[in-house]
Amino acid sequence: MKARLPRGFVDRSADDIRAVDRMMAKIREVYELYGFEPVDQPLIEYTDALGKFLPDQDRPNEGVFSFQDDDEQWLSLRYDLTAPMARFVAENYERLPKPFRSYRAGWVFRNEKPGPGRFRQFMQFDADTVGTPGVAADAEMAMMMADVMEALGIARGDYVIRVNNRKVLDGVLEAIGLGGDDNAGRRLTVLRAVDKLDKVGADGVRDLLGKGRLDESGDFTKGAGLDEAQADRVLLLTSSTGDDLAGALAAMHDAVAGSARGEDGVQELADIGAMVAAAGYDDGRVKIDPSVVRGLEYYTGPVYEAELLAEIPNEDGRIVRFGSVGGGGRYDGLVSRFRGEPVPATGFSIGVSRLMTALKNLGKLDMSDVVQPVVVLVMDKDTESLGRYQKMVSDLRRAGIRAEMYLGGAGMKAQLKYADRRGCPVAVIQGGDERAKGEVQIKDLIEGARMSAEISDNAEWRAARPAQVTVPEADLVAEMKKILDAQAADRAGQ
Amino acid sequence: MKARLPRGFVDRSADDIRAVDRMMAKIREVYELYGFEPVDQPLIEYTDALGKFLPDQDRPNEGVFSFQDDDEQWLSLRYDLTAPMARFVAENYERLPKPFRSYRAGWVFRNEKPGPGRFRQFMQFDADTVGTPGVAADAEMAMMMADVMEALGIARGDYVIRVNNRKVLDGVLEAIGLGGDDNAGRRLTVLRAVDKLDKVGADGVRDLLGKGRLDESGDFTKGAGLDEAQADRVLLLTSSTGDDLAGALAAMHDAVAGSARGEDGVQELADIGAMVAAAGYDDGRVKIDPSVVRGLEYYTGPVYEAELLAEIPNEDGRIVRFGSVGGGGRYDGLVSRFRGEPVPATGFSIGVSRLMTALKNLGKLDMSDVVQPVVVLVMDKDTESLGRYQKMVSDLRRAGIRAEMYLGGAGMKAQLKYADRRGCPVAVIQGGDERAKGEVQIKDLIEGARMSAEISDNAEWRAARPAQVTVPEADLVAEMKKILDAQAADRAGQ
Repeated sequence: MKARLPRGFVDRSADDIRAVDRMMAKIREVYELYGFEPVDQPLIEYTDALGKFLPDQDRPNEGVFSFQDDDEQWLSLRYDLTAPMARFVAENYERLPKPFRSYRAGWVFRNEKPGPGRFRQFMQFDADTVGTPGVAADAEMAMMMADVMEALGIARGDYVIRVNNRKVLDGVLEAIGLGGDDNAGRRLTVLRAVDKLDKVGADGVRDLLGKGRLDESGDFTKGAGLDEAQADRVLLLTSSTGDDLAGALAAMHDAVAGSARGEDGVQELADIGAMVAAAGYDDGRVKIDPSVVRGLEYYTGPVYEAELLAEIPNEDGRIVRFGSVGGGGRYDGLVSRFRGEPVPATGFSIGVSRLMTALKNLGKLDMSDVVQPVVVLVMDKDTESLGRYQKMVSDLRRAGIRAEMYLGGAGMKAQLKYADRRGCPVAVIQGGDERAKGEVQIKDLIEGARMSAEISDNAEWRAARPAQVTVPEADLVAEMKKILDAQAADRAGQ
Repeated sequence: MKARLPRGFVDRSADDIRAVDRMMAKIREVYELYGFEPVDQPLIEYTDALGKFLPDQDRPNEGVFSFQDDDEQWLSLRYDLTAPMARFVAENYERLPKPFRSYRAGWVFRNEKPGPGRFRQFMQFDADTVGTPGVAADAEMAMMMADVMEALGIARGDYVIRVNNRKVLDGVLEAIGLGGDDNAGRRLTVLRAVDKLDKVGADGVRDLLGKGRLDESGDFTKGAGLDEAQADRVLLLTSSTGDDLAGALAAMHDAVAGSARGEDGVQELADIGAMVAAAGYDDGRVKIDPSVVRGLEYYTGPVYEAELLAEIPNEDGRIVRFGSVGGGGRYDGLVSRFRGEPVPATGFSIGVSRLMTALKNLGKLDMSDVVQPVVVLVMDKDTESLGRYQKMVSDLRRAGIRAEMYLGGAGMKAQLKYADRRGCPVAVIQGGDERAKGEVQIKDLIEGARMSAEISDNAEWRAARPAQVTVPEADLVAEMKKILDAQAADRAGQ
C-alpha cells in the first residue's frame, strides 16, 4: 500500500494553517464591521440545487464531484459558496430578515485538471446581500473589498477594486446585433476576448473580436467574426482606463447607444460611482472600469474584481502583476429559480489560498512570533522518572508555557536533534546527578545556536556555556519565563 | 425547483458558528500548550488509503461517500481525521520530527442513516502522537483531554477521562479460549456486550455474553454463547468502578491470567496510572476503567474516553448522563500498513458538534456579548441622500462600530422591524427636516424596548421619549459610542 494523495489535493503545513487563520480573522473582522452575519451550509448538496453555473465550463456538470445517494438522487460537492447560500436563503426566506446580509468561509471542490496554483480543493471566503435590487448594495460590496485589502496590510495604491456592469456589456452586444438566444455562443466569444485585454493588449482583442488571433507559440484562436464597426464599438468600452469616471461613463454611453438595458447599466454605474465618491473611496480604491468581465454565467448586473497591482514573481520566476484575488457581482437569478418571485442578490468571493500566496510574496504573513514548545528531555526511562519529567511539563503548562516531554526512545544527542528540528527554544535536562542534587539544567537553544555560529573556537565554547544554566528544580518555571522573555526581547529588537 | 437539503446535512446559524469557533479556539490553546502543531489533510483521499476502519460497520466501505476519478481510481470523502493523518505521516515520514505531534480539525462524512443528533457531515478535532510505543504518550493524551474539558468551563467532577487497554480485553478473550482468527466474530459480540454496560447493567451484559437478551420492547439480541465460567471472567473486568486503582489492576490481573498479551496490557495501565498520579491527575480527572470499549477495530493498546457526568435533558426531554464527547487510543497498525516497519501511534478525537450541544445545555456557551450592528435608516432614496447615509456608516465603521445602511426598499416602519429582527442596538434616522438642520436622530432600540415593556401609559411614553436623542451630524460617532457603552454597562450589570 503506497501512501499518496490524489492529484490536485494538498496537505497544509503549520505555517500555512496559521497564516490562513490570521488572514481569515482579519477578513472576518471587516465583514462583521459591515454588519454581516456568519451562516454556513454543508459541503454536499443535491446536484440540481447547485445548478450549472460553473465558470468557464461549457459542458454542464463537467467539473463537479458527484455521486448517487441511497435513494438514487444525485449529490455533489459544492463548487462555490454562492449556489448553496442561494439554496439556503430560498429555503428559509420567510423567517430571514431582508435584505439578508451574511458571510461564510469554506472548502469548495472542482473536478478538473489541476495545474500550478490550481487545486481541486480550495478555500473561499464570501459575503452576500440577498433581497435588494438597489446598487447601493453593490457599491457597499466594492468598498468592503477595499477595506479587506487594507485590513490585510496591502497598501493603498497596491490594489484596486474594479467595477463594471454586465448590462453594459450586454447592451453593447445588443446594440451591435448580437442579442437573442441564437447569438449566445458568439456573445461568450466576445466576452472572452474582452476578458483577455490584460494578456493580449488592445490589438490582440481586436483580432479575437474579428477573424482570430495567432499567438507567439503559433496557436490560432478563432475569433468572434465581428466586422470593423462592431469591433470598434466593443473596443470603445475597453479603451477607458477607469481613472476618469466622467470619461468612462461617456464612452460607455456611446457604446451602448440604442440599448435600453445598456443605458440602464451605465446609469447604475454612475450611481455606484457617486456613492463611492460620497464615502471617499474614489481616491483610486474603487474604479469604474468597463473592461472587467467576470466569467460566471449567472451575473446579471454590476460585477466587481479585487486586483493586486503589486508586481510579484510568478511560478516561473517572472515578475508579473499578481492580478485578481477575488470578485463578485449581482446574480438576480440564483435565488429566484427556487421561488416564484424575483429575489435580487449581490455578493463577492475571496480566493483564500491565492490571496495567501500574494500576501506571502509581499512579506505580509510574518510567522516569526510563533514560539515552539520547550522540551523536557528524558534521561531515565523508568516509570518514576517519567512521572517526574511529566510533572515538570505539567508545571510549565500551568504557567502558560508551551511544553512537551520527549516521548520517543532516542538518546540525548538525538533528542537535542529533535528539539532542533522542532525549533524548540529551550531544553530541560535532568539526569541522575542533577536529580540527586534536586536541580535541573536549562539550555537556551536559540542563544546556543547563535553562539555556535559566532564562536569559532571550540575550547572557548566549552569553557563559556553561557546559554545553559543549572537551577533548583523548584525554580524551573520562573527561570524558564526569564529565558523566554529574553528571547522575545531579542526577537523584538531584531 | 425546490430548495432542500439532503437528509443528514444541516445549515449552521450565526450563534452555532460563533459558539463552535470559540470552543475550538479554547481546544486549540490546550493542544498548542502541549506542544502539538497544526497540520491538516484534504477532505478527499484514495479509498484504499483510508482503509476499512469505520466503527461499528461490519461491511467494508459501507458508510463511506465514494466516487471514481477520471483515471478510474476510487476516491472517498474522509470518514475520520485519523486515516488521512496516517497517510500523511507515512508519506512524509523521513522529513518529520519523531515522535510527530500534530492536531487538526475538520469536517468528516458518514454515508449512513441519519437520526436525532446523528449527521452525515460533522466536525472532529483531533490530536495525535506518531512514532512512539511508550505509554507515556497515552498518559499524556488522557491528561490533555482532561485539560480540554476544564478549558471549556466543565467543572472538575463533572467529567472523567476513562482509560482502558485493548490488550486487557484481548487477554481475557484469549484466556477464555476466544483467541485466533476463527473467533473474530464472537470476540466482536463480546466487546459489544461489554460496551453496553452503561445501558443494560451487569445482568444485561451477562445475558448478552450468554444466550442472549430480551429487551423491554420485546426485541431479542442473540448472545455470544459464553458459558458461566467464561462470562464470569469477562464480568470480573467490568465489575471494577475505576475509583480504586490498585483494586482495578488486581481484578484485571486475575481476569487475564494465562495471557501474556493481557498481562502486558495490565502493566501498561499500571504505568499510565503511575504517570497520571505523578502529574496530579489521579484526583478523579483520569481513571483506569476496565469497562471502556472503543468501537474502532484499529485500536491495539490503551484506549481512552472523555465522559461528561453532568445530567442533561436528552432529545426526548429525559434527564440523562450526557456520556462520551470524545475518545481515542493507540493504533499501532494504521501508519505501519503504508510502510515496511512498525510505526506506533496514539491519538484522540473530540466530537465538536456533540460537545457543543453539551456545553449549550450546561450554559457554557453564552453569546450575549455579541453586539449586532447599528443601522442607518434610509428615509430618502435619491443617490445624493444614499451617499450621505453611506458616509455615516463609513464614519461609524472607521471608529470600529459595526454598522450598516438599510439596503432594502421598505418604509420606516418596516425598517425598524428589520432592525428589531436583526437585534440591532441602535438606529440612526435623518429625514428632510433633520438634514436641513444638519442633525441626526439616534434611537436606542434596546432602551426603547425595555421602556415600552415597562411604561404602560401611552401619553407618558410619547412625552418622555428618552431613548431617542437628536444631535448635530458631526457628533454622530461620539454620541453612538456613548450609547453603546451605556448598553454594555447595562449588560455587565445584569
